[in-house]
Amino acid sequence: MKTRNVRLVLRYDGTGFAGWQVQPDVPTVQGTLETVLASILDHSVKVTGAGRTDAGVHALGQVANFETAAAIPLEGLLRAANDRLAPSIRIDEIAQTDPQFDSRKSATRKTYRYTLYCSEKPDPLFDRYALNVPQPLNVGAMREAAPCLVGRHDFSSFQAAGSSAVSPTRTVLRAELSETECETVFETVQTVRFEVCADGFLYKMVRNIVGTLLQVGVARIEPAEVGRILAAKDRNLAGPTAPPRGLCLLNVEY
Amino acid sequence: MKTRNVRLVLRYDGTGFAGWQVQPDVPTVQGTLETVLASILDHSVKVTGAGRTDAGVHALGQVANFETAAAIPLEGLLRAANDRLAPSIRIDEIAQTDPQFDSRKSATRKTYRYTLYCSEKPDPLFDRYALNVPQPLNVGAMREAAPCLVGRHDFSSFQAAGSSAVSPTRTVLRAELSETECETVFETVQTVRFEVCADGFLYKMVRNIVGTLLQVGVARIEPAEVGRILAAKDRNLAGPTAPPRGLCLLNVEY
Repeated sequence: MKTRNVRLVLRYDGTGFAGWQVQPDVPTVQGTLETVLASILDHSVKVTGAGRTDAGVHALGQVANFETAAAIPLEGLLRAANDRLAPSIRIDEIAQTDPQFDSRKSATRKTYRYTLYCSEKPDPLFDRYALNVPQPLNVGAMREAAPCLVGRHDFSSFQAAGSSAVSPTRTVLRAELSETECETVFETVQTVRFEVCADGFLYKMVRNIVGTLLQVGVARIEPAEVGRILAAKDRNLAGPTAPPRGLCLLNVEY
Repeated sequence: MKTRNVRLVLRYDGTGFAGWQVQPDVPTVQGTLETVLASILDHSVKVTGAGRTDAGVHALGQVANFETAAAIPLEGLLRAANDRLAPSIRIDEIAQTDPQFDSRKSATRKTYRYTLYCSEKPDPLFDRYALNVPQPLNVGAMREAAPCLVGRHDFSSFQAAGSSAVSPTRTVLRAELSETECETVFETVQTVRFEVCADGFLYKMVRNIVGTLLQVGVARIEPAEVGRILAAKDRNLAGPTAPPRGLCLLNVEY
């Protein structure tokens, strides 16, 4: 049988993982997937992911791909993999794709969501996927600040040190704040969502942007300051990196 | 200063606890609270809880009480305790109460909720507080079965072995199934909720009832069979115990 390029869509709770990318001696999403797929396919597997999410970051629509020459039907592979994967990862879709498809290089857009809620102390029944902010947020001010991020910009101010990106320029297509009522299993929680869609993201870019917007939300800086921080291309001017647990890779487009 | 009887309302994520009740060498909610309160009050503390929730069971409105002669203002105590408690427990209310108040013995009603959702494999982003059922549920049949539980009955059929209850008779005031759309941080999930309010519950009673209603939902038994199981006072006839993670102590009334 010829080699097939297989495309996956998967979701995971990132809490227990040291991120997407394989590292020695720690559980990673990529490593877990590769181990499970190899055990079913009986050959070593190299999985490429569209977004290399950081430790603690979640995914609803991560896209990945790998090659296999095994003759297993893909629906059977999905079922067998889900049976063996821990409950913290689930493959939602599987399909054969073009030999040239690379989930990372072929991606044209990714969308991330960061979720905040106001609460003096974390809510034990809600905190796993959102960040509590111990004071009221001026969402209007945050919403005023966000549009300056849209467009093609050098995002050096929001790039973490140690990034290996060749160019710090990215095009943000959408950067929106919304107030949403979440009706969880237990309760109704007022949340503030930041959704950002771009052709690519620098290392920790979303979390650095959120950390900066939070400074606007608590009136430590003016909304107009965000545009000046962006223009300065200086990471030292932006806010601290927001924690990973509020961040989720929503989807990837091709 | 005279001894005060202090009443707490608290919530917790039960996943990481071996239940409410103190046991040696394992983390419990009661043990965690007692340690934190003792460290602030500088005397040993015995906390009584209204419901001794099992390992993995959550609480939104657990009520507890303890005695202290320490002169600390209660609002300061709440803040200090929440600062020291892990994010998985939060005290929401604190107040001085009658010397005679016993959160367990004075309780007149407790309400529990069990949450189910239909999904072949657990949803990593939703599964912590709900049970996935890998096939469609006939909620109409489950709803038909539930009313027989209401009233004063001997619930021996739904009592776990090893229970120490003096009498197996309890009065159920409400036992309702509903279909609810949960809008979580990430997605909309169709859930089935079972809510039950009673003057008291036997050991694992709610989870044994849910296990039996699930057998109705997947057409393994007829709705009318639940009444016959109740009347038989025989644990062997009821369904298996549903897992703890779908269960939550919603509130306690006095």
